[in-house]
Amino acid sequence: MFGQGGIGIVRISGDAARGLMERFFHPRRPVVGLDSHRFYYGVFGPSAQDPIDEVMAVFMQAPHSYTREDVVEIHCHGSAVVGRRVIEALVGAGCRLAHPGEFTLRAFLNGRIDLSQAEGVMELINSHSLLGQRQALRHLQGALGLRCQGLREALCQALAVVEAWIDFPEEDLDSESETRIHGLVGDALAQIEGLVASFQAGRILREGVAVLILGRPNVGKSSLLNALLGSDRAIVTDLPGTTRDTLEEHMDLGGLRVRFIDSAGLRQSCDPIEQEGVRRSRAKISEADLILFLVDGHQGLTAEDLDTYALCDPAKVFLVSNKCDLGLKPLDEKLPAAAFVHLSARTGQGLEELRAAIRGFFLDQSSLAGEEELYVTEERHRDCLQRCAASLRRALEAHEGGLSLEFVALELRQGLDHLGEITGETAPDEIINRIFSQFCIGK
Amino acid sequence: MFGQGGIGIVRISGDAARGLMERFFHPRRPVVGLDSHRFYYGVFGPSAQDPIDEVMAVFMQAPHSYTREDVVEIHCHGSAVVGRRVIEALVGAGCRLAHPGEFTLRAFLNGRIDLSQAEGVMELINSHSLLGQRQALRHLQGALGLRCQGLREALCQALAVVEAWIDFPEEDLDSESETRIHGLVGDALAQIEGLVASFQAGRILREGVAVLILGRPNVGKSSLLNALLGSDRAIVTDLPGTTRDTLEEHMDLGGLRVRFIDSAGLRQSCDPIEQEGVRRSRAKISEADLILFLVDGHQGLTAEDLDTYALCDPAKVFLVSNKCDLGLKPLDEKLPAAAFVHLSARTGQGLEELRAAIRGFFLDQSSLAGEEELYVTEERHRDCLQRCAASLRRALEAHEGGLSLEFVALELRQGLDHLGEITGETAPDEIINRIFSQFCIGK
Repeated sequence: MFGQGGIGIVRISGDAARGLMERFFHPRRPVVGLDSHRFYYGVFGPSAQDPIDEVMAVFMQAPHSYTREDVVEIHCHGSAVVGRRVIEALVGAGCRLAHPGEFTLRAFLNGRIDLSQAEGVMELINSHSLLGQRQALRHLQGALGLRCQGLREALCQALAVVEAWIDFPEEDLDSESETRIHGLVGDALAQIEGLVASFQAGRILREGVAVLILGRPNVGKSSLLNALLGSDRAIVTDLPGTTRDTLEEHMDLGGLRVRFIDSAGLRQSCDPIEQEGVRRSRAKISEADLILFLVDGHQGLTAEDLDTYALCDPAKVFLVSNKCDLGLKPLDEKLPAAAFVHLSARTGQGLEELRAAIRGFFLDQSSLAGEEELYVTEERHRDCLQRCAASLRRALEAHEGGLSLEFVALELRQGLDHLGEITGETAPDEIINRIFSQFCIGK
Repeated sequence: MFGQGGIGIVRISGDAARGLMERFFHPRRPVVGLDSHRFYYGVFGPSAQDPIDEVMAVFMQAPHSYTREDVVEIHCHGSAVVGRRVIEALVGAGCRLAHPGEFTLRAFLNGRIDLSQAEGVMELINSHSLLGQRQALRHLQGALGLRCQGLREALCQALAVVEAWIDFPEEDLDSESETRIHGLVGDALAQIEGLVASFQAGRILREGVAVLILGRPNVGKSSLLNALLGSDRAIVTDLPGTTRDTLEEHMDLGGLRVRFIDSAGLRQSCDPIEQEGVRRSRAKISEADLILFLVDGHQGLTAEDLDTYALCDPAKVFLVSNKCDLGLKPLDEKLPAAAFVHLSARTGQGLEELRAAIRGFFLDQSSLAGEEELYVTEERHRDCLQRCAASLRRALEAHEGGLSLEFVALELRQGLDHLGEITGETAPDEIINRIFSQFCIGK
């Protein structure tokens, strides 16, 4: 729970926070009352004579705090033991440990932020690339909530028109109302479909991509991983089967987060530890966004290579010929593949081309156009939007099919409910609980 | 450099800090001037419209800051990307990155803390056990500096008496002065010797102890490590030689930090990866503070066991008979060893006794008596104290041997210099630089 660093922060939220600070924090210079938002220097402990640590402490009076409750922060030295002792003292005085994400949950329940902003907090903390971080900040600042608000208003207007006519079942809608409903709902639907479509790019922004390095034993998988990363992360020896487990390494490839996975070879083995590695490799093939299929450029493709190749989806395979410094058998470019690359992991020849090809493969595919665009990055948001879009489509169909306006109104109300789940107005408790349970402790 | 967590802090120190905050921090509500020690909410970025993150920021006006210079802290979201972008913006505006420990170095150079306190900061951050953390806080708060100050005063008084007589070489010291010098120097020497002797316990408080688990392949080393830790850290299979590298795990054994090391077996092997493991095991034997020598209680001691046993110092060996649940060959208690333990890593039988025996072995040996004692935990401090003690002994000998008082004065002055190195008054720059280079960045 507690790491090591320059500073560790312990946060208390609730009515008792101020009293706990007065009890356990002993300012270096005597103070009369605690000013809100003032940074004090002193010691934390049962008494000034029995200190746990020298600390800075700050009291933030409700509602001007992260949770909108009274909040105290104790900034102590970043040692695991200090943090544990500070928390033990507070728990002994009646505090309980925060659940994961509980501070942010309180900010949501107390109306400071909506649910999509709360999710943006976690997205921002977990962001690993420039593009992903910018999107996360936009979500944290409420851009998706604002967009949903606009959509809700349009749908509410359409619903109001529909409901005005429901009391006159014998009459048809006049053409002006008809046009208005179609315009409002159709526009909203188009916007929502655009947001749903943005998820493919959004997922790449948020999570980055997984690139699996695959190939026969001793073809140079670990060497390629090291060359791509510029370090000696994997053990390299001349014995086939050295890499027993899968190794994973992350890098930032021009704003794009790439997770490289060096798999164990796929050969049959009677060594039980190796067999486990092989099983995991097969699973990784189906999970990878891109496969670097490595062949020995000196030996060329073998029958064993082709067996393994058959397990992969060629649309996401780069056929990579290694050891091109040792003389080369040309690759069989008749094999289906997304790209063909020649390189030498040993000399570095061809590595830059490979990096560029990987970047291009994902950035073209996801059409990451305007940085200022709003992308949907949460699967939950996409699901809500998809369900909303389905309701709106049914509303339009019901109306065009001449069904009663009651049906149209029903679908529009359901669509509004689905939208409201994104910002939390209509999200059930179990969804809210699930979201915050994924947070880190202390946020 | 940047980890992941709820909050990340970027700290700026120096005359330009305030101006940088005014340029990059945009408070949510307009403020007139920055109050010192006030926690502001807003965004950080080139402009309020182009934010890098939502942050809290605080300005601490000199001299009321960690460094005694103007200090600004930006509290942003704890994402690696956010921290990097905030720092890039500041570096672009003329900041440079702090060297490791530079904030604490400035606190020392600006006279807020002495050198032993600065070392206490790092010791506190690195502390891993309750006993170690308490000692570290005592050092951070200046307890060793205070003790040195007392010693310095006593030695200065003795030196003043000696120097008062130096101008009268033809006369002998009167008996009053003689008693006074002997009393002052002798008392100081005894205190310093006590501090030097406290280092053995101090090292255990600070670093904890290393316990190596040694034995033939498949005798149950990994199982014992897992049982001690109560988890499945090491891979356990029935094949000899599974543990290729040494595994290390830490635990807190009643306030004592213990590092358990599970070594690869010491058998000869033609597998080059295993041979490397064996070489490392031999090195670990000489580094370990205690060796748990594991034998198969069912098989008893083998000739191979005895070969390995011969490599160890029996005074720091526990002979541990595992698999006692499978029926037992009694241990040959004629072998020299610090203790004999029977247990079953599989059933947990005997584990608690082993834990207690380990704790007892170190706590008895180091005679960690009064918790309120001051222990020397830094090798550098012990060296300074040893050199000081040697000077004082030579001073007393010179005087008793009837040598000129000039010699006595010379040794006393050298002793004072050695003491002054601890608090930094007389420490050469290269020592100061070496100390701060071991700090973490940002502290």
